[in-house]
Amino acid sequence: MPAYTPPLRDFRFVLHETLRIDQRAEIEGYADLTPDFTGAVLEEAGKLAADVLMPLNAVGDAGCVLENGVVRTPPGFREALDALREGGWPSLECDPEFGGQGLPNVIALAVGEMQSAANMALMMYNGLTHGAYSAIHKHGAPEQKATYLPKLTSGEWTGTMNLTEPHCGTDLGLLRTRAEPQEDGSYRLTGQKIFISAGEHDCAENIVHLVLARIPGAPEGVKGISLFVCPKFLVNPDGSLGARNGVSCGKVEEKMGIHGNATCVMNFDGAQGWLVGEANKGLRAMFTMMNEARILVAMQGLGQATIAYQNATAYAKDRLQGRAVTGAAAPDKPADPLIVHPDVRRLLLDQKAWIEGARAFMLFGSTLIDAEHRHADAAEREKAADMIALLIPVLKGVLTDTGFDLTVKAQQVLGGHGYIAEWGMEQFVRDARIAMIYEGANGIQALDLVGRKLAMKGGQPIMAYFGMIRAFLKENEGHEALKQDYLDPLKAASKDLQAAAEYFMSEGMKNPDAALAGSSDFMHLFGHVAIGHAWAMMAKAAHAALDAGTDDADFYANKLRTGRYYMSRLLPETAVRLARIRSGAGPVMDLPAEAF
Amino acid sequence: MPAYTPPLRDFRFVLHETLRIDQRAEIEGYADLTPDFTGAVLEEAGKLAADVLMPLNAVGDAGCVLENGVVRTPPGFREALDALREGGWPSLECDPEFGGQGLPNVIALAVGEMQSAANMALMMYNGLTHGAYSAIHKHGAPEQKATYLPKLTSGEWTGTMNLTEPHCGTDLGLLRTRAEPQEDGSYRLTGQKIFISAGEHDCAENIVHLVLARIPGAPEGVKGISLFVCPKFLVNPDGSLGARNGVSCGKVEEKMGIHGNATCVMNFDGAQGWLVGEANKGLRAMFTMMNEARILVAMQGLGQATIAYQNATAYAKDRLQGRAVTGAAAPDKPADPLIVHPDVRRLLLDQKAWIEGARAFMLFGSTLIDAEHRHADAAEREKAADMIALLIPVLKGVLTDTGFDLTVKAQQVLGGHGYIAEWGMEQFVRDARIAMIYEGANGIQALDLVGRKLAMKGGQPIMAYFGMIRAFLKENEGHEALKQDYLDPLKAASKDLQAAAEYFMSEGMKNPDAALAGSSDFMHLFGHVAIGHAWAMMAKAAHAALDAGTDDADFYANKLRTGRYYMSRLLPETAVRLARIRSGAGPVMDLPAEAF
Repeated sequence: MPAYTPPLRDFRFVLHETLRIDQRAEIEGYADLTPDFTGAVLEEAGKLAADVLMPLNAVGDAGCVLENGVVRTPPGFREALDALREGGWPSLECDPEFGGQGLPNVIALAVGEMQSAANMALMMYNGLTHGAYSAIHKHGAPEQKATYLPKLTSGEWTGTMNLTEPHCGTDLGLLRTRAEPQEDGSYRLTGQKIFISAGEHDCAENIVHLVLARIPGAPEGVKGISLFVCPKFLVNPDGSLGARNGVSCGKVEEKMGIHGNATCVMNFDGAQGWLVGEANKGLRAMFTMMNEARILVAMQGLGQATIAYQNATAYAKDRLQGRAVTGAAAPDKPADPLIVHPDVRRLLLDQKAWIEGARAFMLFGSTLIDAEHRHADAAEREKAADMIALLIPVLKGVLTDTGFDLTVKAQQVLGGHGYIAEWGMEQFVRDARIAMIYEGANGIQALDLVGRKLAMKGGQPIMAYFGMIRAFLKENEGHEALKQDYLDPLKAASKDLQAAAEYFMSEGMKNPDAALAGSSDFMHLFGHVAIGHAWAMMAKAAHAALDAGTDDADFYANKLRTGRYYMSRLLPETAVRLARIRSGAGPVMDLPAEAF
Repeated sequence: MPAYTPPLRDFRFVLHETLRIDQRAEIEGYADLTPDFTGAVLEEAGKLAADVLMPLNAVGDAGCVLENGVVRTPPGFREALDALREGGWPSLECDPEFGGQGLPNVIALAVGEMQSAANMALMMYNGLTHGAYSAIHKHGAPEQKATYLPKLTSGEWTGTMNLTEPHCGTDLGLLRTRAEPQEDGSYRLTGQKIFISAGEHDCAENIVHLVLARIPGAPEGVKGISLFVCPKFLVNPDGSLGARNGVSCGKVEEKMGIHGNATCVMNFDGAQGWLVGEANKGLRAMFTMMNEARILVAMQGLGQATIAYQNATAYAKDRLQGRAVTGAAAPDKPADPLIVHPDVRRLLLDQKAWIEGARAFMLFGSTLIDAEHRHADAAEREKAADMIALLIPVLKGVLTDTGFDLTVKAQQVLGGHGYIAEWGMEQFVRDARIAMIYEGANGIQALDLVGRKLAMKGGQPIMAYFGMIRAFLKENEGHEALKQDYLDPLKAASKDLQAAAEYFMSEGMKNPDAALAGSSDFMHLFGHVAIGHAWAMMAKAAHAALDAGTDDADFYANKLRTGRYYMSRLLPETAVRLARIRSGAGPVMDLPAEAF
């Protein structure tokens, strides 16, 4: 039975010793995030994750069942969601005006990582709810906010996002769901949506569907899509629940993983809905929530990598098999533990070094989200908004691609035991796989990065990013202890990134295929630089702690050893990514479609 | 519903135009492998794969059920195995003395690739049978051969290999199953084996278990392990079936994939068994079959990558989503097919270019197996044996690691549809995953390669390999059309491989951890060179065909385009593999075990 250990010490190191969030009073709410406060919140959240959510993870893998229109979630899910709601966990980041706690994103994300690591399928019910909350909070009319936000904040009602249709996923311009205006100002929604996570279930009094649809006469394509709110039960003016609306679940999909979350086909049969925001601006409304939604998916990739790593490590320390090549490490035992073997360590360090770096990168990104919304200075808010817009596709694409790969490596540590269900490892792999697909498949992330974000505002954000890395290198150039292991590799990697960006600028102008053929490589190259930067910041913090004298010296020394693994063994991948990018459009585009 | 298209044209190109097997009369049986003959065999095998095996693949995913000691296989499996037997397919490579057809490995492997692509779980029943056949054929006493081989050859009886126990997999020295000698010369086997593929099922009259066990008083560790044959039903002297033996299935494992194959816990309760080969030499007996068994697993990795690629391609040509960045490709349709998008092509070409190269590498390896057994010249037999011994861990490790990665990429092409069961893509991923684990987990392959094969016979085989690559480069140095796209990249990659081997020789002597820390990277580096070599040979053949004039010019031109993708975008990975290897033992070994 897998277990989960909340990485509390690592959170403290990243948040308070590396990013030093409590020193950043210019971001509203950050001064309150003292180590004592975040420590208490994270400890409590970690307990819930380990003791309540984790034990339900394997249970949830048995899946959801649709019977007579009702979806039954796995045993214990409802009670766990109740426990989360009673603890106030879904409301951490929500607006106090509607009952939320108004905490910064960085703390909500750290909490979310633990919850999602322990039970991704279960936490999706709350994740989708937060998406619906954000859509209404940002674009809803005052009465819509009053009707829905308090219940979504508390978690009593859950939410969904209805975008995909059978014939269109990424290309939403093709969508067909119709919204017929009614005399009372509402609309009647008719159409079918698929892949609707938490579309129907038995864990909440009501489900608030956010739905993309077309109003008759709307322009073709993406410019004619509107956003609607459409509750499962209509809400009476006094807030009580009224009649069942014309929306129902037609099917729960059989899928590879996240079985505990009901992935539904939703049928809208003249369901009553109300326009959210302006007509025909629905897609834009969805996009304004993208940053937060996509970093949550990045977090899922990291979370599954973490839980898989922890359990692979426990196995590698416990399982006796073979002898260390340099001589028996446990001569009193029939064999040595797996962890003595270099290739097993390689598998584990690929995970550990990446996970710790990726977590720091993600939380750094989260501080940008907070700065975007809460910085005292408008110019700083804009700069932060631009930089996180640039980094979001990198976070989403890299943390889910590599996060998944690492669950596979964790599974490998257990050999045959990793393949059978009993040990839980194969579930982590199956669950992690979806994060590469939903909320914009990773190819779309790469396209967003190269096709849109690189060029936005004349390239200002990417220039600002390079400026930040250069400034970091310059600021620390006299730091002898950092130089060889951290600064030199970071410099080389960021040079590769810069060369790739330059290649796109010169070649991509002439032939957009040349840029897009390298888009995925660029995203991963960028991810390496960003994680390398995160490691360099952590290494600096670790050296500072060691230099200042500490009774936790092993922690910092091991941090440096782990970081050195990242910098020397994983970061050099930037070179091959650059080589691929420079091979240009030809190899990718020359083969005629019929030859595939 | 996924479909399978036998890659017949590619087989012809590799076997007859590249490897030119029919020209190699010095290998017994090869002169008979004319294009007409192999074409007819492969076409027939391909039909069976596409029409009989493939439709049962999704059916088989529902799994096997254990009831009252009997394992029920999925509907249709028994009939399909009967059809295979009636067609004589299990006996292709078997000894004519026992009813086999005596064909070379290269043709059996090509047939096997198609069968295994179409239905890996089902074909495992025959694969394991062939393992048992080989063990008895190589090490059995004449009466054992007479009793078992005809039935294993025909496929009427199936076989198993019983190695793993709950506390030991890789480290077989720890195994505990006891074999008590009886007065009649037989043994009584007692113990528990786990992960026994096809351990019990309803598709054959009898199941022939090959079992590793210890005879009382045997030396500790691997030097005290003996091999036994232990049939499910005892065999009467007249060949008819007698009493049920004391071996039974205790459990069918729940696992990630290959659900159609019963993975059993097998309990031996004083089961009657007979020693195969010499006492205490059981492990060595198992190892003599490793080459053939491991290339079969490599073939599975390639097979799953192929079927996944084919279905991803079909989807990418059919599914309309978005517009080509360079302007609408299908302006009459609501959107362009996915295949216009560079990143979708990147995903597909990562698969196609690797699959075609890996297939040629595998078949090249197979010709070495044939040369080992069938070459007219003893010195050539030895040379071939050495080189295939070197290449086997590369084939097994790389074709299953990368094969799996590519099923994931194929799945990605379908977006959300790749994640749901309906489309069949996620099954390919789950099925392919096991090949990285069984028949020696890939970390063990890397260890075998670096720890044993590199140093064998004073490094002669690796030197011979480098010599072969050098000779190829030299022989073609005037070939201008090959130079830039093929010869130069192959030269650079093989230089990286040579540098890595030299690093191991110098550093590994001082510190074995320095070699083992880079073992997996070395295996993949080697795989790239080997596939690059295969591509260079194919490119040479394609140019020869084009130069000679052909009415199939598109085929050859597209071959060259596909190969160029491999050489320019995938092969450069050798540089980062080398960089990692050269980072040495430190990053991998410095972190204390308790810090993981």
